[in-house]
Amino acid sequence: MGGKKEAKEMTQVLESPGSKEPTSRDESVMRGFSKLSKEEKIDLILSKFLEQESDQKELLKSFWHKNEKLQKTLDEFSENTLSNFVLPFGVAPNIVINGENYCVPMVIEESSVVAAASKAAKFWMERGGFKAEILSTKKVGQVHLHFSGEPKELKKLFNQYKSHLFKVVAPLTSNMEERGGGLTSLSLKDLTHKEEGYFQLWAEFETCDAMGANFINSVLEALGKELNILVAKDLKMEREEDFEVIMAILSNYTPECLVKAWVDCPVEQLADKSLGMSPEHFAKKFSKSVRIAEMDVNRATTHNKGIMNGIDSVILATGNDFRAVEACAHTYAARSGEYKSLTHCRVENGHFHFEIEIPLSLGTVGGLTALHPLAKMSLELLGNPSAKELMAIVAVTGLAQNFAAVRSLTTTGIQKGHMKMHLMNILNHLETNEEEREKARIHFEDEVISFSAVSEFVKNLRSYQ
Amino acid sequence: MGGKKEAKEMTQVLESPGSKEPTSRDESVMRGFSKLSKEEKIDLILSKFLEQESDQKELLKSFWHKNEKLQKTLDEFSENTLSNFVLPFGVAPNIVINGENYCVPMVIEESSVVAAASKAAKFWMERGGFKAEILSTKKVGQVHLHFSGEPKELKKLFNQYKSHLFKVVAPLTSNMEERGGGLTSLSLKDLTHKEEGYFQLWAEFETCDAMGANFINSVLEALGKELNILVAKDLKMEREEDFEVIMAILSNYTPECLVKAWVDCPVEQLADKSLGMSPEHFAKKFSKSVRIAEMDVNRATTHNKGIMNGIDSVILATGNDFRAVEACAHTYAARSGEYKSLTHCRVENGHFHFEIEIPLSLGTVGGLTALHPLAKMSLELLGNPSAKELMAIVAVTGLAQNFAAVRSLTTTGIQKGHMKMHLMNILNHLETNEEEREKARIHFEDEVISFSAVSEFVKNLRSYQ
Repeated sequence: MGGKKEAKEMTQVLESPGSKEPTSRDESVMRGFSKLSKEEKIDLILSKFLEQESDQKELLKSFWHKNEKLQKTLDEFSENTLSNFVLPFGVAPNIVINGENYCVPMVIEESSVVAAASKAAKFWMERGGFKAEILSTKKVGQVHLHFSGEPKELKKLFNQYKSHLFKVVAPLTSNMEERGGGLTSLSLKDLTHKEEGYFQLWAEFETCDAMGANFINSVLEALGKELNILVAKDLKMEREEDFEVIMAILSNYTPECLVKAWVDCPVEQLADKSLGMSPEHFAKKFSKSVRIAEMDVNRATTHNKGIMNGIDSVILATGNDFRAVEACAHTYAARSGEYKSLTHCRVENGHFHFEIEIPLSLGTVGGLTALHPLAKMSLELLGNPSAKELMAIVAVTGLAQNFAAVRSLTTTGIQKGHMKMHLMNILNHLETNEEEREKARIHFEDEVISFSAVSEFVKNLRSYQ
Repeated sequence: MGGKKEAKEMTQVLESPGSKEPTSRDESVMRGFSKLSKEEKIDLILSKFLEQESDQKELLKSFWHKNEKLQKTLDEFSENTLSNFVLPFGVAPNIVINGENYCVPMVIEESSVVAAASKAAKFWMERGGFKAEILSTKKVGQVHLHFSGEPKELKKLFNQYKSHLFKVVAPLTSNMEERGGGLTSLSLKDLTHKEEGYFQLWAEFETCDAMGANFINSVLEALGKELNILVAKDLKMEREEDFEVIMAILSNYTPECLVKAWVDCPVEQLADKSLGMSPEHFAKKFSKSVRIAEMDVNRATTHNKGIMNGIDSVILATGNDFRAVEACAHTYAARSGEYKSLTHCRVENGHFHFEIEIPLSLGTVGGLTALHPLAKMSLELLGNPSAKELMAIVAVTGLAQNFAAVRSLTTTGIQKGHMKMHLMNILNHLETNEEEREKARIHFEDEVISFSAVSEFVKNLRSYQ
């Protein structure tokens, strides 16, 4: 618990000889931590929580970028930064979308994901590629209000000042309007049937190629402040707290910022030696698997998790926010009242059709897109796409990922490919040489791979040398 | 679309003079890509998709770790790896859980998240700290079956061979059993009311300190294979496809791998100058905000997204799989049929209580936990916790994050802190010097921050020099 016990005590003795025995909790309290320099933070933490003999400081520093200015930029993305955490930055080539060929950057620590997306991309490249269509791009924000007066009074006030509210935020929205977006709609929702005195100012936005979080939040907070003024001026309130802006913030649930992507082909074109079954049988088995993810919540979660493997890896690579994308996608998956698959499959009249419909609120300008050098490169690699084009690319990567996963599951099983990668990781961990790796690769071709089995095998190999 | 048009054509001319005009799609097809070396992959991609004059190759290489062996390990986590994508690796100090003080590693690219968690940690450290309790640790797997015979025959077969099935997978489970886990339960679910011929072999597991995905999937695939043999041997099937294992895979939805974490104190102890209101008013406003996230789906998504900011940052730092954690958490949030907040707040008899209940399937051994040097260090920093202890730490970080976010939203508004960080990022982008940054900081103390406003301000500063 809480790190290195003995060393902590020792530090204590060294630092404050003669001081009274500290409580276990106080001893690790670090005051003014955020004000320390990066090196001071590292030194303090290592002395308190890690073994002193270790070379952990060198390890942390070894991940710093040698360009100090660039490293400073990276450090300032967040707070209390000690180093850079690294994740593999790879690519899935040959993803054909609406006739264009993309090499899609993917950032993911899980094995097999990039390989699976690449495999699905190649398979569908030879069958017409992926298609994608943007269905809508509306963003949403809410100012949550408490008003304990007569609902009709607040409604009257809102209607009276609606155009005034647009004007009040014009200095904030003018730039976005020049780019074709802005605050597009304002309405007042009476939700007093859900909670006493609860109203919402519901705002809709177009944010062009920006994800728009800061823009939307700034506009909403300005609207909230103005409402406070208008209500105080026009409505007679008995107590100050009879009207209150509870909070003003964008919604990450954007079901109308929606993209659809799909693949289709005649069933017989699904034929592929590696399936180990007829294309008809495969189409039936595949579509049944997707149907199971539409009716079984335990399967649906895992099925969608696989989709998000593909999606998040592009989200990360392009400097977008994967928590926002995850929250929105899963809420959307649950919108019917049952949590279901985000992909759907139909086999009709000898034709195979597999699609995804997913809300994605993304940006290709603003945020980290230009500040993170590798996010910037990812976007360049994709031809500096618009936000809409990126929505298509991300949705397709999710669909490709899901196709590969369900194909594996319904044919060879998912462990075959996955365990091969797992074997590599275990062999790295055991610090094997090339010869040992090759022997292990051959041995475990048809054997069950586990850490203990592999280390046993390597141990045996070594004992005979 | 799809990258650099002119340069692509130029490459084409240089590479295959006299060849016939390629179609737009063929021209970027890369065959045998995965077989190329890392440098060959980079050269090929840069030549096809990026401007040739740029120094992108140097940029990619500048992120490689100088220790080649370590870099090779990182490369082999995934496929087609070109470089390391970096995310800020920081810490939130002073997170007190059940009386122990933790310095929690967080990996996140979003500004304000680490600062918010740290602030909430300090606030609650002075009010008794966080409490956490593990409610259960059950993992789940499914073998999805199609059987078009008499349901009772399959049930009879399952009951007859149930203990045999445990024995069949004993070589796979013995190691886990030694550590106190294993395959704990097997049952057959008749789901023919949902889909013709649809059954599930439902398996439950304990996986100790491992997340257990590979273990569970290996056991499930072995169970599926054995079922195939047993059915073929004992049941008379007219056609081969009358019994089929559709797929065998763990479920990422683990509602019984559950942790609860909370804070509580007398309402008057919430007093804090920075609230700008009485502790009673704050408690009321705070709990109302949480209640809104329990009844409004648009708010719930955003509210939970904030929780996941905290959670995923620890998940990433400790080498766990954030897609699995996200999928499970959001499915759990939707389990009632309505998507709701994962945190809950009550103010009763002058007492404030705020809690999170969230399923978290985590590992502190296996996977990347020992292979990724910084994940390993994160776990060391946390005192090499058990999986249960990590569940508590992660849940608490999510709760701390949510407390800070809702506190900001209901007091100063979220933009104040967020925009300060945003300003820093914009100033970095504009390559400002220290003096310009300081002037901008003062100017934008009470001004709305947008990219255009800041660049205008900096432009003006510079024109007067």
